[in-house]
Amino acid sequence: MIIIMRPDATAEQIERVSDKLKQHGFGVHLSPGAERTVIGAIGDKSAIQLEAIQMMPGVSEIVPIRKPYKLVSREFQPVDTVVQLPNGVKIGAGQKLVVMAGPCSVEGEKEFLEVAEVVKRAGANVLRGGAFKPRTSPYAFQGLGEQGLKFMAAARQQTGLPFVTEVMDTRDVELVARYADMLQIGARNMANFNLLKEVGKTKKPILLKRGPGSTIQEWLMSAEYVLSEGNNQVVLCERGIRTFETATRNTLDLNAVPVVKKLTHLPIIVDPSHGTGEWDLVPAMARAGIAAGADGLMIEVHPRPDEAMSDGAQSLKPETFTKLMADLKLIAQAVERRL
Amino acid sequence: MIIIMRPDATAEQIERVSDKLKQHGFGVHLSPGAERTVIGAIGDKSAIQLEAIQMMPGVSEIVPIRKPYKLVSREFQPVDTVVQLPNGVKIGAGQKLVVMAGPCSVEGEKEFLEVAEVVKRAGANVLRGGAFKPRTSPYAFQGLGEQGLKFMAAARQQTGLPFVTEVMDTRDVELVARYADMLQIGARNMANFNLLKEVGKTKKPILLKRGPGSTIQEWLMSAEYVLSEGNNQVVLCERGIRTFETATRNTLDLNAVPVVKKLTHLPIIVDPSHGTGEWDLVPAMARAGIAAGADGLMIEVHPRPDEAMSDGAQSLKPETFTKLMADLKLIAQAVERRL
Amino acid sequence: MIIIMRPDATAEQIERVSDKLKQHGFGVHLSPGAERTVIGAIGDKSAIQLEAIQMMPGVSEIVPIRKPYKLVSREFQPVDTVVQLPNGVKIGAGQKLVVMAGPCSVEGEKEFLEVAEVVKRAGANVLRGGAFKPRTSPYAFQGLGEQGLKFMAAARQQTGLPFVTEVMDTRDVELVARYADMLQIGARNMANFNLLKEVGKTKKPILLKRGPGSTIQEWLMSAEYVLSEGNNQVVLCERGIRTFETATRNTLDLNAVPVVKKLTHLPIIVDPSHGTGEWDLVPAMARAGIAAGADGLMIEVHPRPDEAMSDGAQSLKPETFTKLMADLKLIAQAVERRL
Amino acid sequence: MIIIMRPDATAEQIERVSDKLKQHGFGVHLSPGAERTVIGAIGDKSAIQLEAIQMMPGVSEIVPIRKPYKLVSREFQPVDTVVQLPNGVKIGAGQKLVVMAGPCSVEGEKEFLEVAEVVKRAGANVLRGGAFKPRTSPYAFQGLGEQGLKFMAAARQQTGLPFVTEVMDTRDVELVARYADMLQIGARNMANFNLLKEVGKTKKPILLKRGPGSTIQEWLMSAEYVLSEGNNQVVLCERGIRTFETATRNTLDLNAVPVVKKLTHLPIIVDPSHGTGEWDLVPAMARAGIAAGADGLMIEVHPRPDEAMSDGAQSLKPETFTKLMADLKLIAQAVERRL
Repeated sequence: MIIIMRPDATAEQIERVSDKLKQHGFGVHLSPGAERTVIGAIGDKSAIQLEAIQMMPGVSEIVPIRKPYKLVSREFQPVDTVVQLPNGVKIGAGQKLVVMAGPCSVEGEKEFLEVAEVVKRAGANVLRGGAFKPRTSPYAFQGLGEQGLKFMAAARQQTGLPFVTEVMDTRDVELVARYADMLQIGARNMANFNLLKEVGKTKKPILLKRGPGSTIQEWLMSAEYVLSEGNNQVVLCERGIRTFETATRNTLDLNAVPVVKKLTHLPIIVDPSHGTGEWDLVPAMARAGIAAGADGLMIEVHPRPDEAMSDGAQSLKPETFTKLMADLKLIAQAVERRL
Repeated sequence: MIIIMRPDATAEQIERVSDKLKQHGFGVHLSPGAERTVIGAIGDKSAIQLEAIQMMPGVSEIVPIRKPYKLVSREFQPVDTVVQLPNGVKIGAGQKLVVMAGPCSVEGEKEFLEVAEVVKRAGANVLRGGAFKPRTSPYAFQGLGEQGLKFMAAARQQTGLPFVTEVMDTRDVELVARYADMLQIGARNMANFNLLKEVGKTKKPILLKRGPGSTIQEWLMSAEYVLSEGNNQVVLCERGIRTFETATRNTLDLNAVPVVKKLTHLPIIVDPSHGTGEWDLVPAMARAGIAAGADGLMIEVHPRPDEAMSDGAQSLKPETFTKLMADLKLIAQAVERRL
Repeated sequence: MIIIMRPDATAEQIERVSDKLKQHGFGVHLSPGAERTVIGAIGDKSAIQLEAIQMMPGVSEIVPIRKPYKLVSREFQPVDTVVQLPNGVKIGAGQKLVVMAGPCSVEGEKEFLEVAEVVKRAGANVLRGGAFKPRTSPYAFQGLGEQGLKFMAAARQQTGLPFVTEVMDTRDVELVARYADMLQIGARNMANFNLLKEVGKTKKPILLKRGPGSTIQEWLMSAEYVLSEGNNQVVLCERGIRTFETATRNTLDLNAVPVVKKLTHLPIIVDPSHGTGEWDLVPAMARAGIAAGADGLMIEVHPRPDEAMSDGAQSLKPETFTKLMADLKLIAQAVERRL
Repeated sequence: MIIIMRPDATAEQIERVSDKLKQHGFGVHLSPGAERTVIGAIGDKSAIQLEAIQMMPGVSEIVPIRKPYKLVSREFQPVDTVVQLPNGVKIGAGQKLVVMAGPCSVEGEKEFLEVAEVVKRAGANVLRGGAFKPRTSPYAFQGLGEQGLKFMAAARQQTGLPFVTEVMDTRDVELVARYADMLQIGARNMANFNLLKEVGKTKKPILLKRGPGSTIQEWLMSAEYVLSEGNNQVVLCERGIRTFETATRNTLDLNAVPVVKKLTHLPIIVDPSHGTGEWDLVPAMARAGIAAGADGLMIEVHPRPDEAMSDGAQSLKPETFTKLMADLKLIAQAVERRL
């Protein structure tokens, strides 16, 4: 940590800051400059409480040197983490990409099986579907709950594909973990720290979506919550951030893909369905996500989008999804990956 | 709901959309324009599922006419809601303003009593303090939990002031409600819909903070979740939104105060501590909040901010708070309110 | 400037960075930490070119210590600048506030005189009106040009009030300066550096609006352009920034008022008309602006807003403006200012 | 245009709005709903002035139906525009992609020639370089001016590649147009409408960068300014928008690529250098841009980025650029384009 003093800081103020740092176990290193003194605090063990240094008279600014996350950082673990799902699905392992596909909400057993077969045939390796749905309106369809989990389990049985589904409530973690192969933390719950701790205590792989108003650093801090509970099977999912642009539902931040690859060893996938909000933009952004270096995609597919109980406007029809998968094969080859 | 068709929509496409609307129980009204046909759907009972209309061939855009919230809307209830706390504290009732003050975190019994006495003397009418703390880092102080609730209850006993505190987990609602006079839904949990439903089932007053990445409409939808469970004792709290500006921790959106007053009957208060992130900006923005028409303020006060376990940089010292309360009296008078 | 090296930086890389700094005339001060070396560069004369240091192998991050602006900074000039207009109008001088009022566009001589008389009677001390209008659409009314300047000059003659008007083109600076008492740089031109230099060469007072996508620091850098040409008569105007919120046209960033007061000696006023985009939100935010510590306001007034050729929706009718001025008197008193 | 009346609008208010619309030459079509009346205004000739309707008593909301741009819209011209530069370079024509490359600033004749040769060898087909530089600081290097134009002309002569360069001032358009093959409107000047009109009067191809705080619709309106002056040779360039994310200099909005392709017939290219601000993120985002469907790229290349006079941190070294061009060939093939 570096403390930049104000130009008008007195010698006494500088000394008081130094003393405070030493009390907290820091080594202190003064750099008197032409205009200001800069204090280096060495041995940055408790960065957070020390924000209070900001309050001390004479202090202008504090610059943290160490990143606030540890277990998720590439400096801590240089080697890529591989997340393992049943049926031999690996995420972040070498060339192989993962494609998670399915409807936004599970609406019925037959309907889900229908999509499951379609996406399997097209080459997807993980099923997705919502049983517990976070909906902006209390009057909107809230998901089938445990019934929905059962339908997904049946589809897994039939297709052999593992499935991922969202858990929204600490009280439901045990239930959802009993059925699902991977637990999704939705974008709205990215900073629901109790939920993060709870899924961290399971041994299940976690899909951690980025909050639409969250920085990459905050996202990694949320992953740190999961890892700090002993679960390192975390996949990050970029799904668009909230900006002033209203032409699309969200602004898909593909910059995040190479940035995340630099900062952490965890795999990252891209969700172009939420990232755009419009089905006819999904193929272009799915291709772009793979070209940017993502380890996979999450795509909403619905056999009859105009009858979907949620997010129909951003769901691909089966035939569009099948065509997209063919296109993605070529893009994957161009970046030395494969579907 | 209005459906704007594309300029190249065929007569058949227009008919199919009309038929679909009729199936869903809408009255349909066609306006053939010079360039496009516009379809009015009358009797807007199920706006949400019908987003799927967007998918139908020939449809260009859908314009909802009715607001997605109902119980919170001023059209539904023109008269201002008054939220009642123990000790005769009323929020949103006529001229009287509410001031909630106290430290970010409860750190100890003695410390909390000390602040409680200070803020009471200065004229605050509600105590605030955190026992369960949502912290970006898993390694930061997470709050004292039930112990903290007990300390606040003791301070209430001594000062006679009711207290508000955050609840973060559906599993803790019953516990927190046993102690607290008002339950706070923090900014990060504004869209934690299960938590909203759970506090909606209590009879406690709710303080609903705006999410930093949330629109005013989404905020009101979150309030709708609470009201839809039968609890209309909701106070909104503007605490700053996330923008590109980095000179302050958040951008306090005071526009939201008069906007919210137009749209809903619920009271609204302003939190200039989180809204700025810097203690020396708090007084100016506290004054501005009252001048904009807020029904009160929530302000962080700590006897020794440089020793605070969280948010020290934005906490006022007791003497600054006392001075601010005097200034606020004058502002309150200027807008025909009183502290 | 502080250079933070990567944890894996080699001794050779550290030396090369040090050498480069010395070549550029810096004193160099090494702080070897537990994990990383931090290099202090003393004598920060050419911060900008040195961004290139960022590129050197082993460098993790660069932290500038000195602010990039100089003449506008409070450190350079602690005493408030007072901007002087004809007719004894002073901006930023002690208790007296300035109110600039008038229509968005000048639409005719009679119409402008009518508003000028109204706003003068209500207590405004500067007229505003647009002769050159930056319009999003090339098909929208673009202003009356020199004719509009003449109409404003006539109104000045009749009322005795000085007037401010926008200049959009370097080629028009001489013309507009011949008529106007104060030159406005509109929000869209805040980073039109050639225009800033050109108005800096005049001796006219400048009203510098904040760009809707610009940080406070960039805004002050734009002011620095004007001052660096020898013109220190600059008034800043906060008029709202662009955020994800769509309930209002812009998000009025009143945090900027106390922030700007800390960073610079230049006066700042607030434009609640553009800051909200809706006339019925203007009074609340005008009050809030004064309460936050602004040195004045800029408000759009039109006798018949529903016939205005631009920005009718955010213009006050004369009677609303007159009522607002009375309210503002009380707010001004509460913060020890006066209209 | 559709006018949605308030639920409490009186019959008289509805009539007054209808009358006003008829006065302005609209056909009027009333849809009385269960709760509100909706008024359709047919023959939308003067949408902009009619914003004033918003002000009329009883009006709740106005929904424009027609897009505010015309000449740039795909509805007006379904066929893609091909922009032609000397030396047979075509942008937006079939499979062939364009790559514009070179340093941020032209710093000297020899230096520019060196880069020009490098980028040509690697396969770029247009040179880029800045002679007039918009710099945040008045104390930063402002470019070589006409001298820089001459150096670029010399490089064109030697390499046969046409060049694009920014023009910042209406007074310089004639000068820059005399040398350059394509005029760039920089991001900061996207809404400098006088400059847009001026370059619209030339016959030169225009490269129109998106403003970092501008919506796609505003960007297209700026293009409309150029086309409305008779110049349809416009290429759009996405270069990142400003968001809350600070991990990158800007957030490259690749969603804009397929959105723009839907809305307009003009070509679009992507600038990953400004879009990320860090050279090591540029290759990933260059690949993603092509995969998203862009018609080309603009990339900053500098032989010694750590000595660049501007934007060194985001410039590629020649060898990195050469390697990137090889990778891009594969991506281009995967989307049926070619370099």
